[in-house]
Amino acid sequence: MSKVRVHASISVDGFGAGPRQSRENPQGIGGLALGEWAFATRTFQQILGKDWTVEGVDRKDGGTTGIDDACFARSFENVGAWILGRNMFGPVRGPWPDDSWRGWWGDTPPFRAPAFVLTHYPRAALPLQGGTTFHFVTEGIERALERARAAASGRDICIGGIATVQQYVRAGLVDALYLAICPLLLGSGERLLGDIDLVRLGYGCTEYRAGERATHVVLKRVR
Amino acid sequence: MSKVRVHASISVDGFGAGPRQSRENPQGIGGLALGEWAFATRTFQQILGKDWTVEGVDRKDGGTTGIDDACFARSFENVGAWILGRNMFGPVRGPWPDDSWRGWWGDTPPFRAPAFVLTHYPRAALPLQGGTTFHFVTEGIERALERARAAASGRDICIGGIATVQQYVRAGLVDALYLAICPLLLGSGERLLGDIDLVRLGYGCTEYRAGERATHVVLKRVR
Repeated sequence: MSKVRVHASISVDGFGAGPRQSRENPQGIGGLALGEWAFATRTFQQILGKDWTVEGVDRKDGGTTGIDDACFARSFENVGAWILGRNMFGPVRGPWPDDSWRGWWGDTPPFRAPAFVLTHYPRAALPLQGGTTFHFVTEGIERALERARAAASGRDICIGGIATVQQYVRAGLVDALYLAICPLLLGSGERLLGDIDLVRLGYGCTEYRAGERATHVVLKRVR
Repeated sequence: MSKVRVHASISVDGFGAGPRQSRENPQGIGGLALGEWAFATRTFQQILGKDWTVEGVDRKDGGTTGIDDACFARSFENVGAWILGRNMFGPVRGPWPDDSWRGWWGDTPPFRAPAFVLTHYPRAALPLQGGTTFHFVTEGIERALERARAAASGRDICIGGIATVQQYVRAGLVDALYLAICPLLLGSGERLLGDIDLVRLGYGCTEYRAGERATHVVLKRVR
């Protein structure tokens, strides 16, 4: 049975994105720093430039191969489908003016699997290179999960986007959260966990790995 | 010039204490787990039983000597005075019924220096063994800091207690926060940082040390 997973980075003060997301700042002001631990890894460096471009982040030879790398690589392992919030897909709000926005990631997004984007506005599916097809789901989170589960063929489903993660967690639909706690402050923005009481929802911390540039914890349903 | 420091442990979800503090649960329900990283260290084991008793925590031979130990030891280095919130001193609320409550720590509290307890209700100073004298300050946080600074003779001042830490941070009076991020969830209780915007207050993360049982970060005024 496929699991529903979240992989996310948060600041010491709990933010999963900075304030004021825009085309220039996909993760909000200052939010790009939440990826620094990952950008340094071999796994990221190998796909960077080829599959993935991040403004201001250069491809280097090599990349680190320690705990951070292993944790970043894990976020792509055994993933059969993705569910993304509208803001994770792009900065466009309201009805789609046209089909010109194709995501933040260029022609070859890193998902390499069907990716279901939650939106209130219908849009035709958008197949891109490398195995990613964006599907736009207007029927809510349960229907998106059904479609993702069918598409995943037994592999796991990853949820991305803060408001979306919160909806799935509150609905009791997330099996595990893999968090990278980054040694930085954002001060404001979007808190990943908001005021969700994870203990009441049955979660416990089941893994702790102190990485080179971030600390990795796993939160799973333990009861 | 003495610095004003905070040393505190928080859960992955940001809580510095569990809910419902009581005589049986000085750190609230589940909050004792925030100390587990410290209890395992050599520094703690050396003073445990001698200077300090914690319900349910036994003294063992030895104790760990790695990063956690170094970070715990640092919380006692160069401290000339303490400022403690009323709840950190004890579970008594409202006027002091008598002088029978002498703190959570037995006859020899671990502070070994003057400790100024914020309260709305006057009480005579309480000298205990090992160098700790509790002074009760009814004139507010600025006056408590003045008195602590005078008592510290150039050494640093440590602030303890969540509501108290928040007051001093918001007032711009804290130079550095030394946080241990513990791989556990509390779900509810008291958030150490509440909704304080540390970036707006000028703080940045200046140190990251991945310990054996907790991750240690230092937040300092960087501008």
